[in-house]
Amino acid sequence: MIIQNKEEFTTFVENVKKINNYTDPIGFAIARVDRGQINSDKILQASYPVVNWKENYGSAAVFISALIDSGIEIDFNKSEFVATITKEFVQNCIDKFNPFLKEAKEDAHKNVQVIKYLNEQSDLNDLFRVVFIFDDVAPKSVEAVYLKLYALSLAKADLRSLNLDGAFGILENVAWSGNTPIELDWLRANEISLKLNGKYPNIDSVDKFPRFLQHIIPANNTRILDSSKVRFGAQLHPGTTVMPGASYINFNAGTTGAVMVEGRISSSAIVADGSDIGGGASILGVLSGTDGNPISIGKNSLLGANSVTGIPLGDGCIVDAGVTILAGTKIEISQTEIEKINQANDKQLESKTIFKGAELAGLNGIHFRQDSLSGIIKAYRSTREIRLNQELH
Amino acid sequence: MIIQNKEEFTTFVENVKKINNYTDPIGFAIARVDRGQINSDKILQASYPVVNWKENYGSAAVFISALIDSGIEIDFNKSEFVATITKEFVQNCIDKFNPFLKEAKEDAHKNVQVIKYLNEQSDLNDLFRVVFIFDDVAPKSVEAVYLKLYALSLAKADLRSLNLDGAFGILENVAWSGNTPIELDWLRANEISLKLNGKYPNIDSVDKFPRFLQHIIPANNTRILDSSKVRFGAQLHPGTTVMPGASYINFNAGTTGAVMVEGRISSSAIVADGSDIGGGASILGVLSGTDGNPISIGKNSLLGANSVTGIPLGDGCIVDAGVTILAGTKIEISQTEIEKINQANDKQLESKTIFKGAELAGLNGIHFRQDSLSGIIKAYRSTREIRLNQELH
Amino acid sequence: MIIQNKEEFTTFVENVKKINNYTDPIGFAIARVDRGQINSDKILQASYPVVNWKENYGSAAVFISALIDSGIEIDFNKSEFVATITKEFVQNCIDKFNPFLKEAKEDAHKNVQVIKYLNEQSDLNDLFRVVFIFDDVAPKSVEAVYLKLYALSLAKADLRSLNLDGAFGILENVAWSGNTPIELDWLRANEISLKLNGKYPNIDSVDKFPRFLQHIIPANNTRILDSSKVRFGAQLHPGTTVMPGASYINFNAGTTGAVMVEGRISSSAIVADGSDIGGGASILGVLSGTDGNPISIGKNSLLGANSVTGIPLGDGCIVDAGVTILAGTKIEISQTEIEKINQANDKQLESKTIFKGAELAGLNGIHFRQDSLSGIIKAYRSTREIRLNQELH
Repeated sequence: MIIQNKEEFTTFVENVKKINNYTDPIGFAIARVDRGQINSDKILQASYPVVNWKENYGSAAVFISALIDSGIEIDFNKSEFVATITKEFVQNCIDKFNPFLKEAKEDAHKNVQVIKYLNEQSDLNDLFRVVFIFDDVAPKSVEAVYLKLYALSLAKADLRSLNLDGAFGILENVAWSGNTPIELDWLRANEISLKLNGKYPNIDSVDKFPRFLQHIIPANNTRILDSSKVRFGAQLHPGTTVMPGASYINFNAGTTGAVMVEGRISSSAIVADGSDIGGGASILGVLSGTDGNPISIGKNSLLGANSVTGIPLGDGCIVDAGVTILAGTKIEISQTEIEKINQANDKQLESKTIFKGAELAGLNGIHFRQDSLSGIIKAYRSTREIRLNQELH
Repeated sequence: MIIQNKEEFTTFVENVKKINNYTDPIGFAIARVDRGQINSDKILQASYPVVNWKENYGSAAVFISALIDSGIEIDFNKSEFVATITKEFVQNCIDKFNPFLKEAKEDAHKNVQVIKYLNEQSDLNDLFRVVFIFDDVAPKSVEAVYLKLYALSLAKADLRSLNLDGAFGILENVAWSGNTPIELDWLRANEISLKLNGKYPNIDSVDKFPRFLQHIIPANNTRILDSSKVRFGAQLHPGTTVMPGASYINFNAGTTGAVMVEGRISSSAIVADGSDIGGGASILGVLSGTDGNPISIGKNSLLGANSVTGIPLGDGCIVDAGVTILAGTKIEISQTEIEKINQANDKQLESKTIFKGAELAGLNGIHFRQDSLSGIIKAYRSTREIRLNQELH
Repeated sequence: MIIQNKEEFTTFVENVKKINNYTDPIGFAIARVDRGQINSDKILQASYPVVNWKENYGSAAVFISALIDSGIEIDFNKSEFVATITKEFVQNCIDKFNPFLKEAKEDAHKNVQVIKYLNEQSDLNDLFRVVFIFDDVAPKSVEAVYLKLYALSLAKADLRSLNLDGAFGILENVAWSGNTPIELDWLRANEISLKLNGKYPNIDSVDKFPRFLQHIIPANNTRILDSSKVRFGAQLHPGTTVMPGASYINFNAGTTGAVMVEGRISSSAIVADGSDIGGGASILGVLSGTDGNPISIGKNSLLGANSVTGIPLGDGCIVDAGVTILAGTKIEISQTEIEKINQANDKQLESKTIFKGAELAGLNGIHFRQDSLSGIIKAYRSTREIRLNQELH
């Protein structure tokens, strides 16, 4: 059945959605996969040129219908579904997408463009897979893990919003030579010939995750000076700059505004617009020192060089260079400064002298310093403007 | 007109220099350029095999004369001039350089070697450009920015001596795949086919600047263990070693002697011979915490691991591991130590107990420590020899 | 003479060993070498597909016998011997290995596999060299340095157990483009043509040492997120993870158990199982601040983010984030904590209040903190379990 016009297409999609238990997928996409050199059943990587996340349900219906027409059964009660793409599948989609084939170019109808490309290939070689995520529970396939990491890195899903439980167990640890993942066992099996003929591959990393820049095209004003510094699954808001010194941004971590990053944004940490993570500064992650509580840094805050932050910070905060603030750090604040800090916050600090770091979590406008004549860690009202707060008050 | 001998060449150059308003260029060179994949008018990178900086004015006269003979007008009152090289230009230069063609090899007559190479090409494809800088004001072209960065990185110009105002605005932010700059828009326009056919390029960085090692051949005793750690436009004196941990050297920053670099040398910071920038140590830059005052570190100084230095230091100084010294840091010095420090310096400290970091800026032989039994930051006369000063006194 | 069966082979080896002064080599292997582009006598790199270290003496006898049969004299009193492999040498070995040729595949008889590979080459082009180390003194050849670095990185020799004196002087400082070492002089000699034709190589580093991953295939559960972070000659126990932020592991340093590495393990430093080197943490090396005493960190210890450790630590220790402990750091310990610490150690601390870092070297279960209300560095009994010690007591 070749669909002749857009009205027919709309009707077709409506009919597909009437299939028993039919569920719109949260996310779906077509990947080119890299398979194991020794074990071709192992998926080492999935590259998605187009990612659909809570959108384009018509294309999803086309793909699902094509699978069913190919005799493949989809259990919509399962959390995800993955299938290898066949010529038959592609032809079926081409027939359904017929009214859009001509206009599918540049930014229009990207899913149709993918199908058109596949339709031009003489052999698909089991290299292409379609994946659907119906329920955001722990992923079960490499393809689903990659699709969620794409959704995060493309900012189609919020950081910390997706279930990635068990992702480390699903992904294969491989040697990355450029964009190509290589099984370590394959290197071992071929070490003698590779080394003796001078063809041993140049390995950039050995990891379960690829790098952000292997899959994601950043905004025109985003800069990443060393691709190793940003793991795939990180999210970088346009205007973010990642310098190459001691910086690092883990997956499911990143920025929600233009941020200068010269330090570490550990897993699940998020930094907001206008903030500056100084050279060697560490924001602790859920896997490293924060008891599982992810850290957010507000807008227009400054973490000085080689500082360590183990508590969330609000807007307009400063942690001085070399200063460490953890949840248990005792911090002295004078009565005058408490009053000034209270003016910048909804939450009001009580009248006392010594606070634990955790008590100051998330407050705006705090400047953390170490008094160099006494060694005491003290907090003051920072001189930084708190724009957000001024609007609120 | 083919010049027959070196005397004729000298006369020719003298005549060219009599052209109205003729100005010897501060710098000039011939570049191979990388043009935008989408917009070929955009220059993404300029690679100079030979850089002339306050030298080789005869070659400049040949190039300028060849441009004028091609009907191109040069306004010597402008700060810079750039033109695409034509076959006609090359032939004109060959005729003028005729007396040098045979001996132009190895280290002799490098500009002539460039022209000879271009003369052998069947088609120049708009790939080669000649640039002249007549006045060191804010650069106006990508070629001029690159030429200035070359002058800095080749140590033909002193660090901080060139006007780079607006350079960030002139350079295009691109994806670097090896030495090839790629427009981000081109990646976007071709993402589907590149990813589906497995040809998506491996991206090393996304930045306006290339890396030092993409353009510069370091001295035989210089080591850079990770190319991402040194930005193009940095200057590394022979014998400098840059380790791969937390180190970084920004453009217009670097070393003026053999230095061990395991920390960050921020923009405009300069470190002198025999000094050691420990693992994770930060020297603040003009864009990060020094109020625009660039920091110099003298000879034979040591910045301990994870220390932070926000003031200039003289020779033979030590900042202990983990210690932060900023302009506003209060530092205690005993009378005995003040006297010892004064012996190592021309500038004499007054008799008091507490100094601000800024008051100690640039002094020789100071050891900054944090007393671990009181938390007080104290300064002592370091045990490091101050060679320069001993010669002076 | 073609050996017909394994008994003949055994007899053959016994006879070879009767050669006057014959010595079993500590290590031996066959390398493919990279020679200088300008000076082909210079060995720039040696790649060993199979490394024999205190093992496979039969294969050593075959190789030595083949050299002697080729008229090459070996002085067993010298510490090492290197020779270029000829077709004659290969044929001789093939004849001796005859009983093993068929079964030499996969994990069996790797030295024989190397010879079989060489036997299939039409021309050896002076690319292959055999090296023997008879005495572990200062290495004299590039091949011997590489063989020792392989022994360390493959964990065939313990860290710090091999003599590497003068290795820096033997290795050539080269530009690394992928796995290919390039003489800097060659780049200089060809800079004009390379840059003008757009073929200037992409340089990853300039160093005497290659990277660990250029030569070593790590265990399946080892991860190295950035190849520049681990120098060849480092040793990584299976399960070790090296993150890309501020981490670095130098040669002759590494881990003896599964360790999370986000900081610097300097030359000669060793970290034991279950320990965690936090983001930007520095373990000082023999070349940087420890007066030549290499530092070991015990099991299950934690070096917090941006901490600095200049003394050896036992099991179950913690250095808080941002804290620096050097040999001379004065540390306060209360009587109660001294007693608790003594319970976790064989060595007993005396009853006093102030200790120097060096006095606490190697002790188990110490938690180093800076009191944020006084700036005093204090030590406590850590809350970390000390498994090893519990077994002992």
